Amino acid sequence: MVRERQRRSGSTRKRKQAAAGVVPLGSATYRRLRHPFAPQPIFSDDEVASIHETALRVLEELGIKVLLPEAQKVYESGGARVAEDMVFIGRDIVAEALRTAPASIRMRAPNPEREHRYEPGAMIFAAGAGCPNVTDRAGGRRPGTLNDFEAALKLQQSFEVIHKLGPSVEPQDVPVHLRHYATMRAQMALCDKPLFVYARGRGQVHEGFEMIRLGLDLSEDDFEDGVWAMTVINSNSPRMLDKPMAQGIIDFARAGQMTIVTPFCLAGAMAPVTVAGALTLQHAEALAGIVLAQLARPGAPVSYGGFSSNVDMKSGAPAFGTPEHVKMQLGAGQLARHIGLPWRSAAGSASVTCDMQAAGENAMGLWGACLANATLTVHAAGWLEGGLTFGLEKFINDLEVLQGLAELALPTEATQAEIGFDALAEVAPGGHFFAAEHTMERYQTAFYQPLVADLTNFGSWTEAGAKDSAERATAIWQEVLAGFIPPPGAGEAAGRLEEYIARRTEEGGAAPLE
Amino acid sequence: MVRERQRRSGSTRKRKQAAAGVVPLGSATYRRLRHPFAPQPIFSDDEVASIHETALRVLEELGIKVLLPEAQKVYESGGARVAEDMVFIGRDIVAEALRTAPASIRMRAPNPEREHRYEPGAMIFAAGAGCPNVTDRAGGRRPGTLNDFEAALKLQQSFEVIHKLGPSVEPQDVPVHLRHYATMRAQMALCDKPLFVYARGRGQVHEGFEMIRLGLDLSEDDFEDGVWAMTVINSNSPRMLDKPMAQGIIDFARAGQMTIVTPFCLAGAMAPVTVAGALTLQHAEALAGIVLAQLARPGAPVSYGGFSSNVDMKSGAPAFGTPEHVKMQLGAGQLARHIGLPWRSAAGSASVTCDMQAAGENAMGLWGACLANATLTVHAAGWLEGGLTFGLEKFINDLEVLQGLAELALPTEATQAEIGFDALAEVAPGGHFFAAEHTMERYQTAFYQPLVADLTNFGSWTEAGAKDSAERATAIWQEVLAGFIPPPGAGEAAGRLEEYIARRTEEGGAAPLE
Repeated sequence: MVRERQRRSGSTRKRKQAAAGVVPLGSATYRRLRHPFAPQPIFSDDEVASIHETALRVLEELGIKVLLPEAQKVYESGGARVAEDMVFIGRDIVAEALRTAPASIRMRAPNPEREHRYEPGAMIFAAGAGCPNVTDRAGGRRPGTLNDFEAALKLQQSFEVIHKLGPSVEPQDVPVHLRHYATMRAQMALCDKPLFVYARGRGQVHEGFEMIRLGLDLSEDDFEDGVWAMTVINSNSPRMLDKPMAQGIIDFARAGQMTIVTPFCLAGAMAPVTVAGALTLQHAEALAGIVLAQLARPGAPVSYGGFSSNVDMKSGAPAFGTPEHVKMQLGAGQLARHIGLPWRSAAGSASVTCDMQAAGENAMGLWGACLANATLTVHAAGWLEGGLTFGLEKFINDLEVLQGLAELALPTEATQAEIGFDALAEVAPGGHFFAAEHTMERYQTAFYQPLVADLTNFGSWTEAGAKDSAERATAIWQEVLAGFIPPPGAGEAAGRLEEYIARRTEEGGAAPLE
Repeated sequence: MVRERQRRSGSTRKRKQAAAGVVPLGSATYRRLRHPFAPQPIFSDDEVASIHETALRVLEELGIKVLLPEAQKVYESGGARVAEDMVFIGRDIVAEALRTAPASIRMRAPNPEREHRYEPGAMIFAAGAGCPNVTDRAGGRRPGTLNDFEAALKLQQSFEVIHKLGPSVEPQDVPVHLRHYATMRAQMALCDKPLFVYARGRGQVHEGFEMIRLGLDLSEDDFEDGVWAMTVINSNSPRMLDKPMAQGIIDFARAGQMTIVTPFCLAGAMAPVTVAGALTLQHAEALAGIVLAQLARPGAPVSYGGFSSNVDMKSGAPAFGTPEHVKMQLGAGQLARHIGLPWRSAAGSASVTCDMQAAGENAMGLWGACLANATLTVHAAGWLEGGLTFGLEKFINDLEVLQGLAELALPTEATQAEIGFDALAEVAPGGHFFAAEHTMERYQTAFYQPLVADLTNFGSWTEAGAKDSAERATAIWQEVLAGFIPPPGAGEAAGRLEEYIARRTEEGGAAPLE
């Protein structure tokens, strides 16, 4: 099944591109990227060790509040001290968890060509996620619906530089107890990239896994061979793990699926006001989650995560793409390397609209994630209002930056042929290289082809309607959606879910854990 | 004179900030920055050596066309072979020039607090320069005037993260033979940062030097103690040095002032279509300029420069902030380190308007310059349309990115106090740190204060008029200009030029060399 799809996928891209007209969807070379730059530190090694050490003290001496009794028991069985809902985790327990947590994880996808090794050095991008609202120039800002959710999936699927799927827009028109059916059906029907499952309680999680096995026709063994489902777990900073999150960690771990343990530490609000302090809290909470996963099942795939930034001290509003955000990315990268695990970071913007602030903040976070060598960068495109809104024009514009980073991750050669002494000799002083053989041989592929950037001059631009990059982006996403064709096998995969979903819906679905 | 100004400068900032109301003009810690990140390569060391070697072959075997007979003679006297206007430079001559060129240059300023060491590791920013047009939301896009030139100087002077002055807007309403008087008078009257002099022929250059000595009350010896004047020399790629540029190199070198030799190599147009090929040409031309400076006066301050990017192969238009641009920045950085000289890079945008493209391209070039460890990054803020237009709102928005990089260049600590175990202990799970002592002690200075970014939510933003970052920037530059007060001593410095300028104007000024 999986193999068959692989053979057919060569033609997919051509069909899709033809359907999408002139929109360049990115090179297939973007599919699997390694970080081009050496990881950059913000702290000395001693300081990193000191943060790690203090995080261990936090877990040992201050403890973490765990609301789910089952999780308290798991911690207790692993040797942690539990007093009411407070869990105190000794450093030996943490050390053992870090010993059993895998450093490299096979991230599966319906299409094997879209698999990744989730490991240090990999550079994996995902779109903005978790947004209750959506905005675009055609429909304005509005609460998200299933239609918007699906449109966002189509866009994620279409561009090569987006490597895994995410819930960009929350489909608020689908009741929560049925929502996981709709989101999984849509992923199966429209995409062939790595899948996500929301951790909203045991019922939904297990049904999510079941739908993946059904849709992709996987045996239990197939399902445990690598990771088919991923979810992000946000602890409630400071020092609290709520019920669905703790249950999610346990359930994903026991099923051999990946939780990405990501404290959301906003310095000055739910975390200390300093970069080092916020990171210490982040680190303690992430370690607590990793420990829970390893106690639930030693060797379970689990990712370190960091999404720390600062707040605006005037309004308390979260800020993104700030210098502090980048510092925390760099520090988080150091901490992830200190414990030897792959990790996730995030970009994003606090801007309300598609302006230079929005572009600048997101670019800052993307470069920060790049220099911090984040394995996975979430919210890499389209995330506005600190995650309250997914912007379609923003998504398209952010892709330009992502594709730029992808290009930098591809090899650049300086062979004698590339250097081109003969071409230099061929063109006289004051001449030009437009017609040189060296140019003619290469010009069609020499440069990155912009997605939304307009390089024409003021006169031509004005004559063409003086459209800024947000306006141009509207035409791009509309064209991509209009020409969208699901990947081969997607219809069949979704079809295999129909009976299951119909039955489960009739039986009342699965209520989320509160 | 210089000392006196230093003593008084402490109060300047306060007065200026008061005048400018709430606009944060940046921290005084931005005044002198070192690169925070290790320089990142794009090529292997062997490849860099190969590019350098090929550039030497270009100079030896293909030669460079030098239009100024005086420059031909200088080259010839240094051992180069001259045949008509073609100059062939042996590698021994290049090696000797690289031996005598200083690796660290004292970059003087009217205010000694604004001096820099121009050397590897320094991170110096200058605004977009050389634009014939200016644009802003108040006055629209229009040809530059002296008024616009002065407004741009005031903005450059006001923000700490802009380290040296540049001709952002060309004052087209001043006749060319008198323009250098107006531009120097304006710099003296409004600013105390390092000065520029255009290399438009011997007359204008010598008068520029003379005005600096007069205005700043410098002896001949003072004037040669470090560098008081800087200019950018663009060779005419491929392989041609025009008359004013060659004369500028000679005149600046003999006066102990700095030329920044910057070939403008657009891959696919005036340079080979490959990154390695364009860099080879850039390197050859830059070396030719450096050799001329060193032959004119061994030990003369001179900067390596690189401003290579690609063209749009559909239209031939120059592109900026592209992956190829960044690759060339990284490669240029490697070449500069290979020859051991400080160097200049450039950011900028091809966008026509203040959109996400404009922000994204400039950010790309700024990060590229940062990772390439450029000593000086020109066009760091405000450069639109590939340099045809200086945008005031764009300038303000780009400053946000520059200030972010400046913040990253400042030390970030993780002492026990910063980590704040006690604060972590003080706040209960699910609580917040807003009122923690650790927060209260630090909140006023903990975070970078945004210049133009708006962190309010959708509702507040809409109520406040739904202004995007370009609209907000209009209010910012208007407020800075309205509250502008020249630095202490500036009026006197400009006053010392009046008689000279009046006399020289009456005598007919100085025609540029064509």
